[in-house]
Amino acid sequence: MHDTVSFDLEQNRLLIIDQTRLPGELKILSLHTIEEMEAAIYTLQVRGAPAIGVAAAIGLAVLAREIEHDYENKLREYADRLSATRPTAVNLAWALDRMLAGPHDPESLARQALAMWREDIETCRCIGEHGSALLCDGDRVLTHCNAGRLATVRYGTALAPIYVAAEQGKRIHVYADETRPLLQGARLTAYELAEAGIPVTLLCDNMAASLLSTGAIKAIFVGTDRVARNGDAANKIGSLGLSILARNYNVPFYVCTPFSTVDFDCDHGGRIPIEQRAPEEVTQAWYTNRMAPADIEVYNPAFDIIPNENIAAFVTECGVLSARDLSKVSACV
Amino acid sequence: MHDTVSFDLEQNRLLIIDQTRLPGELKILSLHTIEEMEAAIYTLQVRGAPAIGVAAAIGLAVLAREIEHDYENKLREYADRLSATRPTAVNLAWALDRMLAGPHDPESLARQALAMWREDIETCRCIGEHGSALLCDGDRVLTHCNAGRLATVRYGTALAPIYVAAEQGKRIHVYADETRPLLQGARLTAYELAEAGIPVTLLCDNMAASLLSTGAIKAIFVGTDRVARNGDAANKIGSLGLSILARNYNVPFYVCTPFSTVDFDCDHGGRIPIEQRAPEEVTQAWYTNRMAPADIEVYNPAFDIIPNENIAAFVTECGVLSARDLSKVSACV
Repeated sequence: MHDTVSFDLEQNRLLIIDQTRLPGELKILSLHTIEEMEAAIYTLQVRGAPAIGVAAAIGLAVLAREIEHDYENKLREYADRLSATRPTAVNLAWALDRMLAGPHDPESLARQALAMWREDIETCRCIGEHGSALLCDGDRVLTHCNAGRLATVRYGTALAPIYVAAEQGKRIHVYADETRPLLQGARLTAYELAEAGIPVTLLCDNMAASLLSTGAIKAIFVGTDRVARNGDAANKIGSLGLSILARNYNVPFYVCTPFSTVDFDCDHGGRIPIEQRAPEEVTQAWYTNRMAPADIEVYNPAFDIIPNENIAAFVTECGVLSARDLSKVSACV
Repeated sequence: MHDTVSFDLEQNRLLIIDQTRLPGELKILSLHTIEEMEAAIYTLQVRGAPAIGVAAAIGLAVLAREIEHDYENKLREYADRLSATRPTAVNLAWALDRMLAGPHDPESLARQALAMWREDIETCRCIGEHGSALLCDGDRVLTHCNAGRLATVRYGTALAPIYVAAEQGKRIHVYADETRPLLQGARLTAYELAEAGIPVTLLCDNMAASLLSTGAIKAIFVGTDRVARNGDAANKIGSLGLSILARNYNVPFYVCTPFSTVDFDCDHGGRIPIEQRAPEEVTQAWYTNRMAPADIEVYNPAFDIIPNENIAAFVTECGVLSARDLSKVSACV
């Protein structure tokens, strides 16, 4: 499978898999204007905290190479516009800050973007290796949204342990929440696992309690868009509820994250901005006919906050850490 | 608005609102063959435990009037076929048993079906009056699936308290879970409340924890398809999870039910059969494009069981009762 995000240096293009067309069609988009990049991130053609971080870094490098005059101001404007497309994932701001922190002539930016791209692959691989140690042959696990290879360059965060476990010969069966309103679980997680030959069963989000009550599920693995210093973690809407159900049924709830998603400047989850998205995502998107009355009011937050006490551990590139360990380990990164 | 279910005595037809066409189109179906009635119940053109009970009773009366020979055997066969269309709601079997318990010549059956139709209206009205006493002006409540007028002949069960409260001049704002996979909340609850001029906000099922965490919700009202003697209650998939969230956030969780939905022969929730439905409801229904890979395995139970300890009280036609009171009161019915 093609990498989710990549850099075509010769044509000077940001390449992404168009995730709004999956599972029906695998189409690669080739982007080189700021408008195309903004739209791709806002409309979730590229999504997943690590993937949008790398996409923004490559995007900025592509744009930098085309600036004809007023380089510094133009570059700053592009970074601000990319950063504003989605507020919750910290990776977007993290990646752009890192791009602008060092020398930022076009060639330095291109090198830096490629370094971040490679680093994402290595980091996810490490998360997979640490997470796989938590899994035994025959385990059934539940995941929410898509924190798989389509949310990163390769491997994923929450699904990296599954891919590494499969390589190690463990048979793992994944249950995937469909994840309303945009169905990342149904469209992306089910798709990429099926492509990789890993058994997957799809369920509606509201079926998770029923499934957990059967005792079938060994562990829950999710990704995250931003982790606060105290270990509260923002993730796709529905994660908070799932973490409460996990505690109710004594199923460990693991948050898989690179350190780039930990925001050490953020005290606790209450300070993480939650993106509110358009009502039509709930009332119309994907549907042939309206499935709600016209002009109905809609509550549509894109994320919620998992309190640290509901998180069994964080699976990171540095190992499996408790919320308390997370802030201690920041130095090793 | 037209009654959800009614009996056209002159034409000898069962009339139902086709709920699969809502909210786009209000269409009344006129049914008189067993095949039409089976299909209408299985495909959810008529749904909601009380409504399918009354529909089956009227349906059997319609069929009885057209039997030409072998009356007793034919009648029993029709009752068995109607009863088999959906397994979880006890009202279907309860209504048909009651139809066949007394004299069952065609005219007696027609009278009995009409009596059950009137009784459903009165029972729901009483549930509404008892439930309204739990609500104050300005309250915000959450509901799941549709247990409104479209789930009964009129008024509903879970929404009856809202309608009665509105008549009494209380301003109540309803939050409606969309209720995947068949979107009864989005299509039916949001529709009927908006029609009645009651403020309603739609949310995806997985957003309920986020909403409850804000402290905005005063109470949760749901209906039920079968209550066991110990107070465990089967209801639309997602109710179990919602009841766990309610307990976590100390929000009272009310199950609104007529006594016809209480199965005193059933010890506890573990003995209630759970209907498993077709995968296509999750992977395809309502969608222009497939939103999951072809041939993906799907977990699609239509119901789950709310343990009695998660239920603050049952709102019945006899009053607001605890699980323990429920079995004591059975005699008063």
